[in-house]
Amino acid sequence: MPTTLDHLNAADRAVFVATLGGIFEHAPWVAERVVGSRPFATVAALYDAMAAAVAGATEAEQLALVRGHPELGGKVARAGAMTAESRSEQGSLGLDRLSDKEFARFGRLNEAYGKRFGFPFIICVRRHTRDSILDSFERRLGNSPAAERAAALKEIGYIARLRLVDAVEGPGKPKTAGRLSTHVLDTVAGKPAAGVKVALKELGSSAEGLLKEAVTNADGRTDVPLLGDAPLRIGRYQLEFHVGAYFAARGTPAADPPFLDVVPIRFSIAEPEGHYHVPLLASPWSFSTYRGS
Amino acid sequence: MPTTLDHLNAADRAVFVATLGGIFEHAPWVAERVVGSRPFATVAALYDAMAAAVAGATEAEQLALVRGHPELGGKVARAGAMTAESRSEQGSLGLDRLSDKEFARFGRLNEAYGKRFGFPFIICVRRHTRDSILDSFERRLGNSPAAERAAALKEIGYIARLRLVDAVEGPGKPKTAGRLSTHVLDTVAGKPAAGVKVALKELGSSAEGLLKEAVTNADGRTDVPLLGDAPLRIGRYQLEFHVGAYFAARGTPAADPPFLDVVPIRFSIAEPEGHYHVPLLASPWSFSTYRGS
Amino acid sequence: MPTTLDHLNAADRAVFVATLGGIFEHAPWVAERVVGSRPFATVAALYDAMAAAVAGATEAEQLALVRGHPELGGKVARAGAMTAESRSEQGSLGLDRLSDKEFARFGRLNEAYGKRFGFPFIICVRRHTRDSILDSFERRLGNSPAAERAAALKEIGYIARLRLVDAVEGPGKPKTAGRLSTHVLDTVAGKPAAGVKVALKELGSSAEGLLKEAVTNADGRTDVPLLGDAPLRIGRYQLEFHVGAYFAARGTPAADPPFLDVVPIRFSIAEPEGHYHVPLLASPWSFSTYRGS
Amino acid sequence: MPTTLDHLNAADRAVFVATLGGIFEHAPWVAERVVGSRPFATVAALYDAMAAAVAGATEAEQLALVRGHPELGGKVARAGAMTAESRSEQGSLGLDRLSDKEFARFGRLNEAYGKRFGFPFIICVRRHTRDSILDSFERRLGNSPAAERAAALKEIGYIARLRLVDAVEGPGKPKTAGRLSTHVLDTVAGKPAAGVKVALKELGSSAEGLLKEAVTNADGRTDVPLLGDAPLRIGRYQLEFHVGAYFAARGTPAADPPFLDVVPIRFSIAEPEGHYHVPLLASPWSFSTYRGS
Repeated sequence: MPTTLDHLNAADRAVFVATLGGIFEHAPWVAERVVGSRPFATVAALYDAMAAAVAGATEAEQLALVRGHPELGGKVARAGAMTAESRSEQGSLGLDRLSDKEFARFGRLNEAYGKRFGFPFIICVRRHTRDSILDSFERRLGNSPAAERAAALKEIGYIARLRLVDAVEGPGKPKTAGRLSTHVLDTVAGKPAAGVKVALKELGSSAEGLLKEAVTNADGRTDVPLLGDAPLRIGRYQLEFHVGAYFAARGTPAADPPFLDVVPIRFSIAEPEGHYHVPLLASPWSFSTYRGS
Repeated sequence: MPTTLDHLNAADRAVFVATLGGIFEHAPWVAERVVGSRPFATVAALYDAMAAAVAGATEAEQLALVRGHPELGGKVARAGAMTAESRSEQGSLGLDRLSDKEFARFGRLNEAYGKRFGFPFIICVRRHTRDSILDSFERRLGNSPAAERAAALKEIGYIARLRLVDAVEGPGKPKTAGRLSTHVLDTVAGKPAAGVKVALKELGSSAEGLLKEAVTNADGRTDVPLLGDAPLRIGRYQLEFHVGAYFAARGTPAADPPFLDVVPIRFSIAEPEGHYHVPLLASPWSFSTYRGS
Repeated sequence: MPTTLDHLNAADRAVFVATLGGIFEHAPWVAERVVGSRPFATVAALYDAMAAAVAGATEAEQLALVRGHPELGGKVARAGAMTAESRSEQGSLGLDRLSDKEFARFGRLNEAYGKRFGFPFIICVRRHTRDSILDSFERRLGNSPAAERAAALKEIGYIARLRLVDAVEGPGKPKTAGRLSTHVLDTVAGKPAAGVKVALKELGSSAEGLLKEAVTNADGRTDVPLLGDAPLRIGRYQLEFHVGAYFAARGTPAADPPFLDVVPIRFSIAEPEGHYHVPLLASPWSFSTYRGS
Repeated sequence: MPTTLDHLNAADRAVFVATLGGIFEHAPWVAERVVGSRPFATVAALYDAMAAAVAGATEAEQLALVRGHPELGGKVARAGAMTAESRSEQGSLGLDRLSDKEFARFGRLNEAYGKRFGFPFIICVRRHTRDSILDSFERRLGNSPAAERAAALKEIGYIARLRLVDAVEGPGKPKTAGRLSTHVLDTVAGKPAAGVKVALKELGSSAEGLLKEAVTNADGRTDVPLLGDAPLRIGRYQLEFHVGAYFAARGTPAADPPFLDVVPIRFSIAEPEGHYHVPLLASPWSFSTYRGS
């Protein structure tokens, strides 16, 4: 149950710290250091204050904060020692249900990482697909210790920001949700293409496949964004537009079989909080797309 | 070893008939009926004369011609009773190496077809993928007997035309080859994109997958057409353009991961003897394609 | 000063008729025939009732209604005998300030038209440019008398609808305004192009030229639609996008002089009440556009 | 009458020098310095040797070479003191038929330039439109003396190269001609658009307007390139494609008036020896273009 910013602004110091003590994993001192700066006008201002407290902490405190996080997909996770928040976040990607092979791979990466840096690999899993986690994991293994500590703190910031947005209702929430939308235009009719079936798939070695199916409305759009209300996961995707069936239903002349039937648009998302508008302009013989906004 | 049109025009009647007796399967009478019309100025004229002889034959002769063909992927094929030409043509698609399941499916279709029409299903396999053969098979089962006899004769004409073009060298060959070409344009640089890896795949339930890989040259094209020198097989294909690697190699700014990495263009071929030019115009954030010529 | 629908629904019959008597030119009987159908839930319902009264009138009444309209740009107009509404409508297009040559041309068309049909040429000038009026004039001269009477009544309906929307405030107004909007996307950056100067010009033999200038905002759009709040005039237009200056300001590499500098998009508007979205997707070397919505 | 490279390779030294003495204006010493390097395998090799002789000359010789050129569109030109080659080159752009106002403008620029640099402004007019000459003139007035002497020598090289290509037949001519081509694709039909009227106009304050009209053939191209066989003049151009008439003739549904009628593509040419392929992909409601090759 989320609380409200008003409530936190007015609460006893102990209640404030108890409520926000878990925003930064096993680090209630972050909440303690900002309680005196109340009232906060916006949720974003509260978050900025907490982030500033972390940035201003000693190196030892920062390292302890990093070390307080569970291993990703590792033994700890299986043994059930994570906080409820961590369990929920990692579970959202299926990291608590890894195959033996994946478990082994994460294990090897965790071991190499721990040996190199002396703390667990931290990543804000709600902003990633499994593939992009593995990519990041391997890339970050090449970092210098200082660069990697900075990278870990940055991820901790993303995790805390999402937790705070979940935990506290109030004005001026920081932007944590992205959006993926589309639009289909029929360039033969010069009109939005209504009734086009659109499928969104996640691609990748361990992708879950179909994420969403929708049909375009009279304006050539889907009634709700294909993705929204949460960070977009960094990763590879494919939109599939069933334009062959659309043109056949309208009686637009085409070849048999139609030159274009299901049109795939393959793209990657790099900005979890961004707006990706990926439209399709199509005739039975041509199409174009672009990242719009 | 192909012969020449000049040789056939000058040869004894018996040699002419012996040489061309197999162009129409088990029907040397077709060659016999045109031998008196020599000389033929072009290979196309020779083909047209033979096709006219078939069109002008009696219904009984036409039916016998149709019945002279082997079942597609059926028992006869396995038993080795096909002519060498039939074996080579069906083998090109792997119809002599069907899995048990596919063999059974072809068997069921053959049986239903034979029961309905009283003659074997004939299709010019060199103009088809396995998927389009199965599609045609199922569609043609719905034909009236008269429409289906016409369809069978049309396919026999395609088969004979290809055999004739293989067997006889000379001027004025009928067009039997199609062509698939591409071109990649970098819309950031306003120049052909050189060094882009391009893969061509056949799609479909029983597709063989990768047909060809190439890299674009300085003119943004492949040195040789992706497909050519033979009929294009009716079916579904996917071109994959590795534009992410291309832009990265040039240092063109992009996202990380790049919005566009491998761009798939999925399309169908409906005209085996046609020219399909399928270009890609791309920036790191947009692309378009069309059937050109 | 517009009145309100509520007021008209509650007013004396005489007030109602006096207020709406001029909606159909010199034809207060139209208002009289609908006064008994009050109350009207929406302005559109009121308009529909009045239009139905015209459609249900006798041929003689309809002809009298048509004949009650002034000649377009003709002697009457110069002599000042038009109603205030007619004067304002025709004046909006400069039809009261015709050059001698144009005046003569309108005169000839008016004369030919009057001789052929026996009533003045009527067109809802607020939905037209001068060029499209002349086009319509010449085309409609070829109509049969019955088709032309129908055409005249249709235009009278458009005129009345606009007058009613101007005269009466209230819920459910009929849609009389169109909209022209644009959007500029930079396909090199994969982002909206901000700061692009856009000019809208009317084209045509007697066009006024520049209608509007704007600069795209951070979203690549203009802060307000290029046209809106009124019917779009049927006619020819040109949007001019200053993309050369935009790319130069961003430092995007280009040729010298740039391949694309001012990009003109020339198009026609055929639906005065429609939404025309005419975007530009551009790199320094390529662009595309389409009618969107 | 052009001579041949073979002839020049075998000729007396005096004949060689007499024949090529005018390639560099009033500077027969350039020919003299390369005569000993014969034979030249290609015309390009001959040109390169002459250009190297100029590059290796003393500063005094280079300055004398520059000063040997006539003023552009100046008094000398009017007085008839130019060499035949200079007269022909400047005449091609109408620089010998300037209006009094243009003559005065050139006069002012010539005077300012002469005062600043002490030698006449030289530009290879066959590579320019009047507008780009004026642009260059004004820009180069801002050069340092050293940069401007280099700029002048570069232009002298272009002039000499064109003269040499005109004067000497033989293998391996340097590339001096550019090419402008187009292609129209109908994205509704997925085919080349045949029968589309295309006009090419030069734009600019003193442009001559229509340069060429053509109609696309069955392949959607013009039978001959729109421009070719000579350097393309640096400048601004507009292609106009009459797609409205094309789609109307084919019966492709469109609005009335059609959204797209005459489609202008405005572009600049910056590389006189380049190939500009400027295609149009169009439906009645959308189009795109790009610089292709």
